[in-house]
Amino acid sequence: MTDLHETLGALRIALGDDAVLTGDTINPRHHSDWTYHQPACPAALLLPRDTAGVAAALRICNERGQSVVPQGGMTGLAGGSTPRATDIALSLQRLTGIEDIDPAAMTLTVRAGTTLENIQLAAADAGLLFPLDLGARGSCQIGGNIATNAGGNAVIRYGMTRDLVLGLEVVLADGRVLNLLNKMQKNNTGYDLKQCFIGSEGTLGVITRAVLKLVPPPGPVATMLCALPDYASAVALLRRIQRELGTPQAYEVMWQDFYRTGVSWLEKPIAPLDDSHPLFVLCDLDAPAQALEAVMEQAFEAGEALDAVQASSHAQARALWKIREATGEFPTRLKPLNFDVSVPIADIGTCVERCRARIDARWPGNRSVYFGHIGDSNLHLSVDLNSVPDADPHEIEETVFAVVGELSGSVSAEHGIGVLKKPYLHHSVTADALDAMAALKAAFDPKGILNPGKVLG
Amino acid sequence: MTDLHETLGALRIALGDDAVLTGDTINPRHHSDWTYHQPACPAALLLPRDTAGVAAALRICNERGQSVVPQGGMTGLAGGSTPRATDIALSLQRLTGIEDIDPAAMTLTVRAGTTLENIQLAAADAGLLFPLDLGARGSCQIGGNIATNAGGNAVIRYGMTRDLVLGLEVVLADGRVLNLLNKMQKNNTGYDLKQCFIGSEGTLGVITRAVLKLVPPPGPVATMLCALPDYASAVALLRRIQRELGTPQAYEVMWQDFYRTGVSWLEKPIAPLDDSHPLFVLCDLDAPAQALEAVMEQAFEAGEALDAVQASSHAQARALWKIREATGEFPTRLKPLNFDVSVPIADIGTCVERCRARIDARWPGNRSVYFGHIGDSNLHLSVDLNSVPDADPHEIEETVFAVVGELSGSVSAEHGIGVLKKPYLHHSVTADALDAMAALKAAFDPKGILNPGKVLG
Repeated sequence: MTDLHETLGALRIALGDDAVLTGDTINPRHHSDWTYHQPACPAALLLPRDTAGVAAALRICNERGQSVVPQGGMTGLAGGSTPRATDIALSLQRLTGIEDIDPAAMTLTVRAGTTLENIQLAAADAGLLFPLDLGARGSCQIGGNIATNAGGNAVIRYGMTRDLVLGLEVVLADGRVLNLLNKMQKNNTGYDLKQCFIGSEGTLGVITRAVLKLVPPPGPVATMLCALPDYASAVALLRRIQRELGTPQAYEVMWQDFYRTGVSWLEKPIAPLDDSHPLFVLCDLDAPAQALEAVMEQAFEAGEALDAVQASSHAQARALWKIREATGEFPTRLKPLNFDVSVPIADIGTCVERCRARIDARWPGNRSVYFGHIGDSNLHLSVDLNSVPDADPHEIEETVFAVVGELSGSVSAEHGIGVLKKPYLHHSVTADALDAMAALKAAFDPKGILNPGKVLG
Repeated sequence: MTDLHETLGALRIALGDDAVLTGDTINPRHHSDWTYHQPACPAALLLPRDTAGVAAALRICNERGQSVVPQGGMTGLAGGSTPRATDIALSLQRLTGIEDIDPAAMTLTVRAGTTLENIQLAAADAGLLFPLDLGARGSCQIGGNIATNAGGNAVIRYGMTRDLVLGLEVVLADGRVLNLLNKMQKNNTGYDLKQCFIGSEGTLGVITRAVLKLVPPPGPVATMLCALPDYASAVALLRRIQRELGTPQAYEVMWQDFYRTGVSWLEKPIAPLDDSHPLFVLCDLDAPAQALEAVMEQAFEAGEALDAVQASSHAQARALWKIREATGEFPTRLKPLNFDVSVPIADIGTCVERCRARIDARWPGNRSVYFGHIGDSNLHLSVDLNSVPDADPHEIEETVFAVVGELSGSVSAEHGIGVLKKPYLHHSVTADALDAMAALKAAFDPKGILNPGKVLG
């Protein structure tokens, strides 16, 4: 690496003084993502205005072997965009704006720094839906959503971010710009390079522009909460609904511990369904209320459902969702150790039982809650560290991830690897696959300047 | 490269004599795919029994720099699996069988040499649908479908092969086996390596096993043929149907020239709708006939549709499809030069007009037909070389691909590149992107033994 001073001088000439910040002029939000794990003020913060600026910045840094941490909305949950003091941070926040909405192709072309919420609003203005949705929608940027292959609330119906991306513009580590701005559903002209960059957490290239798929908005949505006898019934009911009425917008499973917690935190803590049932499902579906009732009749007869309540107004639907949205209060009411894992759908019930048994045996008196998007094979669990103040969080993590590994699951379903999940990657990825990932990294970033130490290495 | 004789000896020891064929013992179907372009008897044909056999074969060939051409059902349309006389062909045909159907996860795990049709049947036996479907279903193998990212008839509703693959087992050029047999919809544990191999036409690795997504089968399907005033109406009607009733199973647009040809080849050449209309759509949709009629009323009022007929029986539906299936008779009734291109949906009408104007101007009296899966942005056109016997096919190809390039389209929508489309790749892929593809190739196959000369180079 050459002299930082010289590097910053070259960057100032290329980007302009106001696009190269250092020290106290850097807003602290660039020091860490939402994990606040090992925050650091980077050696500099670059604020290029356009793709050419990103390309110039990377060319200068690559020539000098200077490490670069790409940054979006800083809402990540794995430390992927947190810089070290020796890194230069490159924020996409000035590359904002929607360039094109094509109603015939149902596509939206957008610059990487645009927030997810602004994209959702622009799609809605055009009478369409951009179905990616997650809690951080107002802050997260589409470049970061793509770089982390974000999941969120609507995956069961519309897929992950990867499934919603048709084309990309990407700047490689050496400053070359790859124009992969495809608008077509079908395009078999060589390797589909964009796939390499989606979910690569800024380690293979910097995304500057994207072509996104839009979909027709759903019709009126029915919301239902129901109580189930066991996990197998949650799968059977989901498949019944899909077969008869189509894939729901949301299908959120809550184990009893979660349900009781969610109800107890309501303003009026009255359970809409008796809390003695072992399992609850909250379902959003764009089908006529009558059709849903008919399917639930079948489910009651088959013993898949024990009780159910359907919202008859938007306010009632919001009230049912309030129970599930208890997660939003975890940071203030608990000291949560959160997990975001996936296992094959049939094994999620086993995963819960096995995790609970091992955690209860090792840490008696722990308070833990289990919930998940089971249609996506995604299970979340949170252990309240306040309930077991002497527990070593890493030991809890090893306990859970060991179960996930036994069930051929994934230690990160939707949050990515960053730095926080790196120690556990071996539970889900073989040594040969890790080697192949390293080969891919070396092919696109031979000097290793892009987000070093994240995901791999 | 070392001595072929020595290489074959090593392969015979590793795989057994009956798995290493040479000369006349090689069935000629291994000499070429369905293009019959430059067929050749390979130096040997390998028939490994399992993944370990594939791994051993590749290790031996890689150590000796021996080129290997992976082969599936040999139904490709771009010369991708056609060997040269100096290549060793590696057929996956003995790796057959479905290993697992998981009804909870709705996944099917299968060996690469299994035919698409056998997978469809196994899924149906389990009450589910594997929605990939194409004319070669009885011969093509799933490994080849994945290696070419096959498209087919149901892409508008269910996506390309890429969208239906959850996990893969892949043997790298040096014989290492990558276990990427994921069953989960959500899995963000590092780079999604399987994406690199899907659509890479056997140049980056050999697919030996796959985990596929199944879906609930659709309900009863309504079939409708309608006549439209122009291309813009075809897009508007599709979006109307999607908004009101969901995405159709098929939405096939036929320009007048195609419709007239299809009707003229019927046993009783009577047009179900007057053939003076400029455009026709054949639509399959799993919605009640009544609901479809109501939407068509709106379409008539909006001027998007001019006339329509709905099949009232399975036989009537088959009769309507018979017109579209004229393509099956192209090889015997015409000397067709077939194109499989894609352009952004709004521009398909322009693409047709521009191609037709330039072809008519340069080759007066040509017989050409235009049709497409417009919801997938896919346009097919066929020029009957019998109608212009003096035309140079390459000049026609350059003419069409130039239009495609002008409209930011793709010279191969679903058939891949192989050797036949390689000269035209520059119309759709930038030089920097081709360089990035070459870097990917070098990363996974540094000696360049896998399917050399295909796609790249």
